[in-house]
Order: sequence, then structure tokens, then C-alpha cells
Amino acid sequence: MPQEEVTAALLVIGDEILSGRTKDKNVGFVADHCNQIGIRLKEVRIVADDESAIIFALNELRRAYTYVFTTGGIGPTHDDITADSVARAFGVPIDVDQRAVALLRERYAETDLTPVRLRMARIPEGAELIENSVSKAPGFKIGNVIVMAGVPAIMETMLLAVTPRLKTGPRLLSVSIRVNAPEGQIAAPLAGCQRAFPDVAMGSYPFFENGRSGTNLVLSSTEEGRLRLAKADLIARLGPKLTVSE
Amino acid sequence: MPQEEVTAALLVIGDEILSGRTKDKNVGFVADHCNQIGIRLKEVRIVADDESAIIFALNELRRAYTYVFTTGGIGPTHDDITADSVARAFGVPIDVDQRAVALLRERYAETDLTPVRLRMARIPEGAELIENSVSKAPGFKIGNVIVMAGVPAIMETMLLAVTPRLKTGPRLLSVSIRVNAPEGQIAAPLAGCQRAFPDVAMGSYPFFENGRSGTNLVLSSTEEGRLRLAKADLIARLGPKLTVSE
Repeated sequence: MPQEEVTAALLVIGDEILSGRTKDKNVGFVADHCNQIGIRLKEVRIVADDESAIIFALNELRRAYTYVFTTGGIGPTHDDITADSVARAFGVPIDVDQRAVALLRERYAETDLTPVRLRMARIPEGAELIENSVSKAPGFKIGNVIVMAGVPAIMETMLLAVTPRLKTGPRLLSVSIRVNAPEGQIAAPLAGCQRAFPDVAMGSYPFFENGRSGTNLVLSSTEEGRLRLAKADLIARLGPKLTVSE
Repeated sequence: MPQEEVTAALLVIGDEILSGRTKDKNVGFVADHCNQIGIRLKEVRIVADDESAIIFALNELRRAYTYVFTTGGIGPTHDDITADSVARAFGVPIDVDQRAVALLRERYAETDLTPVRLRMARIPEGAELIENSVSKAPGFKIGNVIVMAGVPAIMETMLLAVTPRLKTGPRLLSVSIRVNAPEGQIAAPLAGCQRAFPDVAMGSYPFFENGRSGTNLVLSSTEEGRLRLAKADLIARLGPKLTVSE
């Protein structure tokens, strides 16, 4: 029986990305990681630190996909409203969680556990914690929603920590073919190959290098055998006049 | 009378971003540009080359914001389905547009204007064209939706070309303060300043550098005078013990 597809969305929370001040680095890492473990990242949204925007996006996404990853907004300052917004989206209470406080104690002296720092221990009721090996303040998983920090190094350690708890499906395998010709010259053979292999996803990505046009063709499938056949078929259709590198 | 706020969303269309194969470069450019011209980028979505995903996102976003920018999916290959999806979202016909064909003639000889290349001239009925000074094949604007290429150099030239046709609002001005202390130490003075200046947006962005924690504090407002007052207030609240650089 073929494995079931497992899907995900990523919700990036942060005014600083939308204003352009900070350039996002988390989308690429989450996309690569999902691809490697057999989760299909189907959608990304970036919203502001705004409760109603977070709740609207979260509720749409958690109903549409197997998992929703969120990044950002779980620090100690007043603009960190992700945990409270997630609790509200799920309709559950939120308070300082003693398991999270115990983790903060590994980093902070008792006198440094100020009310401000304890904000980082606010966890919605019913959530499991996600370990943060960088700075201790944990992420959490509630239902199918995985809430992580926005700082890339911390997000990455949390994503790796939660991965063993996630369902995964078949990995999408890909092959690339680089053609030294613009898209207009390869569109017809590519479309022909797509008709012959409707089960293999085919994408075409133009590039410009040293003033010349080229195209990367990417074939993707969960079936290695189909991928090999489709690639051979495409190379034959492109013909000997096009310079192809694999 | 204060100027009206003008908002926008960006819809990035492309399997290659979601699979991690291509790292997006357009979000940062569009965010910076919107910020500079007085348009508030409120949301970004990244969806696959999938008609129903594009239409669903486009219809939500064009109803919620003044403008929607899209990038990707307007080339000549079979996976370029953005123009057709936009036409369908608006419920208008789409066909090869003679104005767009005239632009392609500036680049291609008549014999090279194959049916494949003419796909790049498919424009929904009622749309205005957007000039592409890099490779001629135009973008377009229909209603409040601005459809641009995915290749960064082409997207950028299209965005600059369409800018004079867009409404803009007051620019959001920002000042940053860099503090050599973790968020936990600045959260209380920052929250105090936020209460004193509820009209100034305040964000806190932790960073780690050479093993030490620091925080960038960013204040934003359309009113330069309020920004200056809020910044002075915040520096006073942070107090002389924290090292601050502006």
C-alpha cells in the first residue's frame, strides 16, 4: 500500500519581515527539512504581530494541512503574542507552565526569573514542549501546530527536536537537467514529456548567466523508476542540438 | 486630513520555493520597496503552481488589501499557469493579447514567435500591461492585482515600472536602537515606553553575536516628531547601565 502524503504549512509571524528590515531565513530551512523527511510543504504565510491576523491564518492552515509550523513571536517582550494567539485559536487557557519554568531554571538564577522572563514559559493548556538546546525557553506542539522561535539558530534546533514526533510520508525525489537554451526552445519537448509522464511533476526555471539564457528543468516523483524513465525520455525529446548537463 | 493607509499582500507562486530548491529573493525586495513608497505590506503567501491554490489565495488577498502583487508563473512553459488562474479568479476571458505580441516582436523574429512563446502574451481581458525592460514579455495589472515574473531581475524592473500607477499612503518611518543586553532585561522598560506611546509600533529583535545576547529595538510611526519623543523616552527608561548604540 502506498504511504499516505503528509502535508504542512509554515506561518512566519513578524512585522520585521513584512517591513523588509529583516530578511527571512527560516522559509528555506523549513522547506529543505520538510522535503528531506517526506513532508510536503504546501503553503507559507507571513503575517504581522497582530492577534487577529495570526488567528485567521492559523485556523485556515491547521484545517487544510497535516501540520502547521509557526516561527516567531515567543520571546519575553510585549510584541511576542504568538503563544497567546495560538491558545485563543484553539480555545484553550494559557498560563505559566511549570515544566517550562523548570527548563528556564537550567539557564537563569532564581532571582533572574522575573515576570518578564516567565512570559517565555506561557504555554497553552494541553501542549507538549519542544526542547530548545540553544537558550532553553521551549517551543511547543498543540494539536497539529508546532510553535517555534523566530531566531534561525533556535528555530532550527526546535525543528530537529520535534521531527521524531512527526508523521512523515514518501519522500519526493527530484532530478535536474540544465539546458543552455531559453524556455521558449524547451517548452514543447517538456510539455510532450509531461503528457507522457503525467505522474511526474515537471518544472521549468529560466536563468540568465553571463548574458545568456538557460533553463533548469526539474522532475519530481516519489518513484525512482518513473523519474529515471521520464528523464531519459525528456533528454531524447530535447534532442542532440541542445547542450544538456545533468 | 491624514493620508489614507494603502495596504498590500504579496503572493509568491512556485513549487520550487516550497520544495526548498530555490531560495526566494523577491519577498525582501518587495517588502523594502513597499516600505519606501508608503505601501504597508501586510501579508505574504507562497503557494504551489496549482490553479485552485492560486485562485483561493488571490481571492482572499484581493478582497482584504488595496493591492496584491504576484510573482512567478508567467513564462512560456506548461507549468506557468498564473495568467490563466488570475483570469479565472476574476471571471474574465484570457487570450493572446496583440499589445503583448507587439512587445514580443521587439525581441523575437517573426519565425521565433512560436505558439509556445505566444503563451507569454496571454493576458486576461481588461488588464493593463506592465513593461519588462529585461526580456520584453510583459507583466500586467488587472483590478488591484499586479502580476509579475518570478526571476528577480525581471520582477524588479516590473515593480519599478508599475509603481507610478499605484496609490501610496504615508511612509512608515523607523528608528533602531541596539542594546547589548538580552530581551529579558529590556522587556519592562520597552513595555513602559509602549504604554506611554501607544501610537508608535515597537518591536524587539534578539540576536546572538560572538556568544553574547543583544537586542535590536525598532520604533515605527508615520509621525517623525512622535518617533523622536518615543526614542528619547525609551533611552531614558533603559537607563545608563545598558550600552546603547543608535
